[in-house]
Amino acid sequence: MIRVGVVGGAGYTGVELLRLLAQHPAAEIAVVTSRSDCGRRVDEVIPSLRGYLDTNFEAPSIEILCDCDVVFFATPNGTAMRMAADLLARGCKVIDLAADFRLRDANVWSHWYGEPHLCPELLREAVYGLPETHREALRTARLVGCAGCYPTATQLGLLPLIESGMIDTTALIADVKSGISGAGRRAETHLLMSEAGEGFKAYSVAGHRHHPEICQELERAGRCPVGLTFVPHLLPMIRGIHATLYARLTADCALQELYIDRYRGEPFVDVLPPGSCPDTRNVRGANRCQIAVHRPGMGNTVVVLAVIDNLVKGAAGQAVQCFNLMSGLDEVLGLRGIALVP
Amino acid sequence: MIRVGVVGGAGYTGVELLRLLAQHPAAEIAVVTSRSDCGRRVDEVIPSLRGYLDTNFEAPSIEILCDCDVVFFATPNGTAMRMAADLLARGCKVIDLAADFRLRDANVWSHWYGEPHLCPELLREAVYGLPETHREALRTARLVGCAGCYPTATQLGLLPLIESGMIDTTALIADVKSGISGAGRRAETHLLMSEAGEGFKAYSVAGHRHHPEICQELERAGRCPVGLTFVPHLLPMIRGIHATLYARLTADCALQELYIDRYRGEPFVDVLPPGSCPDTRNVRGANRCQIAVHRPGMGNTVVVLAVIDNLVKGAAGQAVQCFNLMSGLDEVLGLRGIALVP
Amino acid sequence: MIRVGVVGGAGYTGVELLRLLAQHPAAEIAVVTSRSDCGRRVDEVIPSLRGYLDTNFEAPSIEILCDCDVVFFATPNGTAMRMAADLLARGCKVIDLAADFRLRDANVWSHWYGEPHLCPELLREAVYGLPETHREALRTARLVGCAGCYPTATQLGLLPLIESGMIDTTALIADVKSGISGAGRRAETHLLMSEAGEGFKAYSVAGHRHHPEICQELERAGRCPVGLTFVPHLLPMIRGIHATLYARLTADCALQELYIDRYRGEPFVDVLPPGSCPDTRNVRGANRCQIAVHRPGMGNTVVVLAVIDNLVKGAAGQAVQCFNLMSGLDEVLGLRGIALVP
Amino acid sequence: MIRVGVVGGAGYTGVELLRLLAQHPAAEIAVVTSRSDCGRRVDEVIPSLRGYLDTNFEAPSIEILCDCDVVFFATPNGTAMRMAADLLARGCKVIDLAADFRLRDANVWSHWYGEPHLCPELLREAVYGLPETHREALRTARLVGCAGCYPTATQLGLLPLIESGMIDTTALIADVKSGISGAGRRAETHLLMSEAGEGFKAYSVAGHRHHPEICQELERAGRCPVGLTFVPHLLPMIRGIHATLYARLTADCALQELYIDRYRGEPFVDVLPPGSCPDTRNVRGANRCQIAVHRPGMGNTVVVLAVIDNLVKGAAGQAVQCFNLMSGLDEVLGLRGIALVP
Repeated sequence: MIRVGVVGGAGYTGVELLRLLAQHPAAEIAVVTSRSDCGRRVDEVIPSLRGYLDTNFEAPSIEILCDCDVVFFATPNGTAMRMAADLLARGCKVIDLAADFRLRDANVWSHWYGEPHLCPELLREAVYGLPETHREALRTARLVGCAGCYPTATQLGLLPLIESGMIDTTALIADVKSGISGAGRRAETHLLMSEAGEGFKAYSVAGHRHHPEICQELERAGRCPVGLTFVPHLLPMIRGIHATLYARLTADCALQELYIDRYRGEPFVDVLPPGSCPDTRNVRGANRCQIAVHRPGMGNTVVVLAVIDNLVKGAAGQAVQCFNLMSGLDEVLGLRGIALVP
Repeated sequence: MIRVGVVGGAGYTGVELLRLLAQHPAAEIAVVTSRSDCGRRVDEVIPSLRGYLDTNFEAPSIEILCDCDVVFFATPNGTAMRMAADLLARGCKVIDLAADFRLRDANVWSHWYGEPHLCPELLREAVYGLPETHREALRTARLVGCAGCYPTATQLGLLPLIESGMIDTTALIADVKSGISGAGRRAETHLLMSEAGEGFKAYSVAGHRHHPEICQELERAGRCPVGLTFVPHLLPMIRGIHATLYARLTADCALQELYIDRYRGEPFVDVLPPGSCPDTRNVRGANRCQIAVHRPGMGNTVVVLAVIDNLVKGAAGQAVQCFNLMSGLDEVLGLRGIALVP
Repeated sequence: MIRVGVVGGAGYTGVELLRLLAQHPAAEIAVVTSRSDCGRRVDEVIPSLRGYLDTNFEAPSIEILCDCDVVFFATPNGTAMRMAADLLARGCKVIDLAADFRLRDANVWSHWYGEPHLCPELLREAVYGLPETHREALRTARLVGCAGCYPTATQLGLLPLIESGMIDTTALIADVKSGISGAGRRAETHLLMSEAGEGFKAYSVAGHRHHPEICQELERAGRCPVGLTFVPHLLPMIRGIHATLYARLTADCALQELYIDRYRGEPFVDVLPPGSCPDTRNVRGANRCQIAVHRPGMGNTVVVLAVIDNLVKGAAGQAVQCFNLMSGLDEVLGLRGIALVP
Repeated sequence: MIRVGVVGGAGYTGVELLRLLAQHPAAEIAVVTSRSDCGRRVDEVIPSLRGYLDTNFEAPSIEILCDCDVVFFATPNGTAMRMAADLLARGCKVIDLAADFRLRDANVWSHWYGEPHLCPELLREAVYGLPETHREALRTARLVGCAGCYPTATQLGLLPLIESGMIDTTALIADVKSGISGAGRRAETHLLMSEAGEGFKAYSVAGHRHHPEICQELERAGRCPVGLTFVPHLLPMIRGIHATLYARLTADCALQELYIDRYRGEPFVDVLPPGSCPDTRNVRGANRCQIAVHRPGMGNTVVVLAVIDNLVKGAAGQAVQCFNLMSGLDEVLGLRGIALVP
C-alpha cells in the first residue's frame, strides 16, 4: 500500500479526494490535515465518511507529513509552495490540486496570485497534471501541479482543434460555466444559497486566473500563439462544469473523426456521437470528460461542448489519475465509479 | 377600463400575464381560456390568484373573445394565427406572445415551425413587439407579435453595437442560457426536476427557431447582413435568461457611452456601471433588462452581458408594455414592480 | 407621506422591506442604514432597486434616524433594544422585525438570546406584531415586536384549534420547514449553496428560540398551558415556510368551518378548500398565509398545513401590515402584490 | 457470475440498479428491458453508462428473461405480478422493487392499488425486502418484495422503539419528506422543475399507499396494533428522504443505547452520536440509513430523525442487498460506495 497524506481534507476537493482514496485499492490514507478542524474526527466533520476513515484531522506540518509516500495538497493557492521543497527533500512526492505549480513562469504566477512565488526553481521540474497531454512526464514526476477545473474542460475541448492546425488560434472563445462547489468551502456571502441559487451571472470578465494557464498549455500544444476570450459564469447548482467553446475553421476538416482519433484509448475522455449535447449530470461524481463537436449550418464556426465534474476530473479524480501514473499503477485504479444519475 | 382576454391562461406566460393584468389599473380581465382546464375556476388551478380573479377558464372561441378590446395569446406556436384574422375583423386588437407574427417571411416561418402559415397576408401588418425598436409602430398597431425571450435579451444586448456600425456583423456569437420555465408547462420528461435540476447542457446547437427571428431584426436594425452563431443552454433554475454576446470591433469605440446613449430614456433597459456583471436574480419578476458591456484586456472582442426574466421582459411584461403603447396608456403602467430578491 | 427609516437595509428582511416600502403609496424612505455597506449607494449593493431608491447606506445613529416618523429594525437580535428607548423618546415609532420585543418576560429573553435585555420596561408596552391576534393594540402602538417567521405560520395554523378549546393543548407537534433565506445574509459555511442545496435536515431539535415565543402566544390565545414539540428543518430553497401541525382532538368538530369562521375578513389569511395541500410557491413574494386543515381517516389527529413566505408574511410584509395599522392607514396598503408563480 | 435481468431499466430505480450492478463483482447484466426505449442502446438513453454496459434495451418477455438467475423488476406497481409466477416456474428468482409483493393481504393490496392482485397465492411466499427485519428469510427467498422508500426510513427509525415496548404505538406520527426522484421518471406536470423547484408541499394527507405497508410491518415487529399518522411531503431536490418521527414514551428509556444496540452489526444502518441531525446529503448515492434520536427537554416525546437516499437504501441498493443475501454472497458486496458530498 502506498501511504498518502491529504493536506486540507475538509474542503470540497479534500473531501472528494478522501472519498476516492478511502476506496482506492492501492492507497492507505495515513494523514489528513485541516487547520480549522484540527483535532476533530474526520467523520464528525464529514459524516459521509463514517465507517470508512477512522482518524482525526491533524495540524499540517512537515514532521507529520514526511512519513507519507505521496502528499496531496487540497488547499488554497499559495499553500503547497510553502511545504513542497521540504517534502521533496525528504523523499515524498507532491501533488498540488491548487495553482502553485501549474504555471511555468514565476512572474506570471506572481501577477495573478498576488505574491511572489516561493520556489520558482521547482516550477521547471513540476509536471502539469493533465494526463491527456503530459502522461509520460507524469510517470516519472516527483512534483505535479494538477490542471485547474476550467482549464481541464477547456483544454480537452480545444486540444484536437489546436493540434490539428486547422483553426484560427488567435480568436478563440471559451464561455464556461461552473457549479458553485468550484468556489470552495469558503464562508463568503456571494456563495450563500440565497445569493447563488435561482440566479446566474458571469464574473471575472476582465481577467481570470485560469486564463494564463489555459493559454500556456494551448500554446504548448499548438506551438503557436493563442488569443482567447475567456468568460466564466456561476451556475445555480453544486457540481459540474460546462465549457462552450468557439473556434473559427481555416480549413475543411472531418471534426468528429478528429476528436475520435485524438482521444482513442483515453480512459476518461468520451467523445459523444455527432449531434449530442453533453449534460453535466451525466458525469456527476465520475472522473470523465464528455465532449461533442458541432459545426452549425456547416459554417466555419466550430462549437465544442465539454463537460466534467469540477471536483473529480477537474480536481480530485485528476489528482488520483496523476497519482496512479506517478506510482506505476494502472491509470484507472479507483477511478471507475459510474456517475450518479439522476 | 380596457377589456382584455387571455387565451392560454394556464401556461406559464399566461399565469404571468394574469398576475400583471389583475393588478393593472387600466385593464379588466374579461375572459380567460384554457382548453385543458376549461370549466375549472382559475384560482383553483392557480392558487396564487385566489382573491384576485373571480372567474372560470372557458374554452377558446371567437364568440367568447370578440367582446374584448384586446386579446392576448399565451399559447403554443401556431395557435394565434388560427383566430387572429377573425378577431381583427370584429374589431379586437391581438397580441401574440408566441411566434406566429414575429417573422416577416411566411416561408421562413413554415420552415422553422413545420406547417404552412395560415395568414401570411397579416405578416405585413403585424408589428414586432419589441418597444425599444418598434415603439412608434406599436402605438398604432392592431396586431403584434411579441419578441421571443432569447431574441429580446440578444437584441437588447447587441443593438447599440449593430446600429453603431463598428463591429463585424458577420461573426457574432450569442451564448444564451435560459431558466426552464422558458420551455413552458409541458409534461415532457426532459423538463422534470430530476432531469433538469443539478445539471446543465446546451441544446438545439444545429439550429433554433429564435435564430431567424434575431437575424431578421438585427439585419433590419443594422441594415446589413448578419452572421450569428446562436447556442442556447438550459439552466437548472426556473426564471431568467442570461445572454453572453461576443462581437469583434472594427473600430475603436467608447462602449459604455454607446450603451448609455442608446438606452437613455428607455424605462425598462438599465445599463449597469462599467465592470458590472448582471445577475438574473436582480430582474426576477421585473420587466427589465440589465446590461453590462466589457472589453477584456482592451482587445477587439466586445463581451456584452444581458439579463431578463424570460416570463416578464421576455414574454408577459413585454406584452403588457406593447398593450400600453397600443392603448395610448403610459408605457410603464402596471409594470413598475420591483424584482423579488433573494 | 410618512417618513420611514430602515435599519439594517442590506440583509434579506431589509431588502424585502425596501422593496415593499419603495412602492408603498404612503411611505417615504428617508434613511437606510447598514454598518457593513455604509457609504455605498443602496442600489449598488442591491441592483434590483436601481431606479427606485436614490440614496446611500448610512451608519445607524439616533441623530440620523430620529427625523423619521417610523423606524424599522431589520437587524440581528439584540440591536433594536439598544436604540428603541431613545427613538421613542424623540417621538419615533419603532417596529422591530427581530426578537427584541416579542417576549413578555425579560428573563426568558435573556435565557434564549444569551444576554440581559437592555430595556425590560419596554417589554410591557411593546405590542406583539401579529395583526390576526393583536390588531386593536397595534392601532395605537408606539413599539412593535413583529412575530417571527416560524411563529407566524405555526400560530396562524393552530389558533382556531387553540381558541376552540377542542384539542389537547399539552401535546402539540409543529414540524416546520424553512427556506434558507430565513437564516439571513450571514457568511456562514452551513448556509453555502454547496452545503444547503440538494439536502435536507432538521436542526435545533433540543430547543429553538421561536419555541417560547409560540408558547407565550398560544397560551395567551387559549388561556391554557401549552405543551409543544417544535422541530425546525432547513429546505433546499430560498423562500418559504411550511408548517405541518399535529393536534389531538378532544371533541368532535367541524374543522373546515372553524377555520373559515376564524379567518373570515382577514385580508392575508386564506383558508383553502377541503383536501387542499398548500404549496409555499403560491405565496412567494406575497403577504399571505394559505392554510388547509385535514383529519386523516376521520381519526382524532388533526393535521394543519400552513404556508407563508418567510420574508413577507413572516417578516417584512408583516412589518408593513403593522405599520399600516399603527399609521391609521388601510391595512392592505402596499401589500396586495400577487405571488410570483412559477 | 450470477446472470441478472433488469425489467424497467430506463426509470430512475432501474438506472440506479444498473449503476450498482454494472460494478458488482458477482453479477453479470444479461438482459435490460424497457418498453418505451426498446431497441435503443442503453447508453444512448443513459449516457453515464457509456463504456460500462454494452447492450440494447429489449422488450420484456418471459422468453428473454427466463435465462437469468435473478430478475429485478424496477417497474410501475402491477407489473411484476404479471410475470413473477412464470419466472419462478422456470427457476428464476424474482426481486420486485415496486409494491406487488410487499403486502401480505391481497384485499388490502387491491384497495390501495386499484386492481385485483393477480397472484395472491405468491403473497404468502414472498419475503419482505428489508434485511434489518427479514434477513434470515431473505437468504432462502425465491421472491422478494423490496420495502418502499418511505417505509424503509420510517421503519428503521421506529423499529427500536416499537420492539422495546416502551412507546404508545397507537399515536405515532411520521412527517416524511422525499426528493422528487421518488415520484419516478414520469412525464407529469406536477413533477416539472418549474412546479417542484423552489417550493414545498405535503400531498396524499388523506391516505398514502405506503401507510398500510408501514403498519403491517410495525405491527409484525411490535406484535401490537399500530396507529400511525403519515404525512408525506415533496422536497425541491432530487434524491433523499428525511423521516421525522414522533412517538410518546410510556416508560423511561436510554434511547441512544437502545438504538446503538438494535443496529449493532448492521452494515447499512448508522446511529449518529447524541444531538446529531442527519442530513440527506450525507447518504446521497450510498446504501445507508443515518439515524439520530432526540428527546427534547427530556419530555415524553421522542423525536427520531432518519435519512436515506430513496433510490439506494430506499430502492436499488436495498434490492442489491437482498440479492446478495438470496445469492449467498457477502451482504455488502457492491454496496460500499461512499456518499457523494457535496
